[in-house]
Amino acid sequence: MRNIKLVIQYDGSRYRGWQRLGDTDNTIQAKIENVLSRMTGEQVEIIGSGRTDAGVHALNQVANFKTNSTMSTSEIQDYCYRYLPDDIVIKSVEEVDDRFHARYNVKGKKYLYRILNSKYHDPFIRKYITHVPEKLDLEAMKTAANYFIGEHDFTSFTTAKSKKKSRVKKVFDVEIFKDGDIIEILFYGKGFLHNMVRIMVGTLLEVGYGKMKPEYIKELLEKKDRSLAGPTAPPQGLFLYEVEY
Amino acid sequence: MRNIKLVIQYDGSRYRGWQRLGDTDNTIQAKIENVLSRMTGEQVEIIGSGRTDAGVHALNQVANFKTNSTMSTSEIQDYCYRYLPDDIVIKSVEEVDDRFHARYNVKGKKYLYRILNSKYHDPFIRKYITHVPEKLDLEAMKTAANYFIGEHDFTSFTTAKSKKKSRVKKVFDVEIFKDGDIIEILFYGKGFLHNMVRIMVGTLLEVGYGKMKPEYIKELLEKKDRSLAGPTAPPQGLFLYEVEY
Repeated sequence: MRNIKLVIQYDGSRYRGWQRLGDTDNTIQAKIENVLSRMTGEQVEIIGSGRTDAGVHALNQVANFKTNSTMSTSEIQDYCYRYLPDDIVIKSVEEVDDRFHARYNVKGKKYLYRILNSKYHDPFIRKYITHVPEKLDLEAMKTAANYFIGEHDFTSFTTAKSKKKSRVKKVFDVEIFKDGDIIEILFYGKGFLHNMVRIMVGTLLEVGYGKMKPEYIKELLEKKDRSLAGPTAPPQGLFLYEVEY
Repeated sequence: MRNIKLVIQYDGSRYRGWQRLGDTDNTIQAKIENVLSRMTGEQVEIIGSGRTDAGVHALNQVANFKTNSTMSTSEIQDYCYRYLPDDIVIKSVEEVDDRFHARYNVKGKKYLYRILNSKYHDPFIRKYITHVPEKLDLEAMKTAANYFIGEHDFTSFTTAKSKKKSRVKKVFDVEIFKDGDIIEILFYGKGFLHNMVRIMVGTLLEVGYGKMKPEYIKELLEKKDRSLAGPTAPPQGLFLYEVEY
């Protein structure tokens, strides 16, 4: 069978997230699987690099699937473009080695979180950014962000219900950029726990508001208690930015 | 009575256009009038600089209204921000001379039309740009655009049902810019007839596809026949960009 790699861009606003959930087809995975299954006449199952939550977007989600179809990669791309809803676009289709696995082979992931720091919201980007009208201390946020870098137990920064045995993750880098009213926070790591990026952002915002000292992040990591960290930042500001293999 | 000038930004995607239509409140004018009426306890009527059609956006629509309310301009702005839907934002509120009239006093208007000229659409801007996958001859379009400049009878470039006595309008300038895959066409004139900008764009696209010679625009203006011009370009690429007084 051929192994096909997809790079996918989606506006997650109206979906329940990436992962297929039982009968509902209101997920990105289900939308793509349905189109590919119709295209090939096979029961196609795609493997994503990981889940994204309801309302979260992707600029470069990666997935792969196996097929006996003889269609060319550009025929597959054109078919998907024609039949997928207009908020999901396959950016590239490539035939890859049989051993390529979009989840197991991940070497690194980048997530981007976007904040509009202005008095009023902007109607044209409102679904792709989080509006924060309060004044933010950017320098304090940058100092705080540095405490996330390295290998840590991120129990304080994941959903309490997370069933993962190990909550130790390696964060390679966190960078904060500001351009006009827009603040972008780029998270780069080996992998992230459920809601981890959004809780890190919610906590950085507490630092930005002046409610939390930057140094408190260190203590938070040690205490392993979700209830001490900041709230989970809203999904519409979050983008899966890149997956590295 | 005080005379209040508003500068308004809106995403027109889910509205039937600017102008209040009988009972339906699914227009931008109705949404704003309802909020202002509730705020002042008066029956507020706002005068816009002109209509925008269903699905057309505005970066700086201007309107004015009369009121006896003693609220400060920033209180009015905050109230509107709180109670208007999130796709309509009042960018500024200013108390102006009693004689200011948002429609009669217009000296010039700028409209921007945005085109994404790429093989595939971009899900994140799909509601704010028109996707054109075909190759476009930009130089031919620029030559054609020059024929619109000046005072002409634009009968070929307005809806057949237009009841206006005079279809003579003065276009000050038409400029075409390209940045990556994005083409922007800026129309600047004293005023525009119904659908005039969108029909000019639809005609410029015919020139871009190579189906029409740039020089044919001159003939089109003389023939005064809507059926000879190009189709009306879709609304989502059009923005009311600026109103001059």
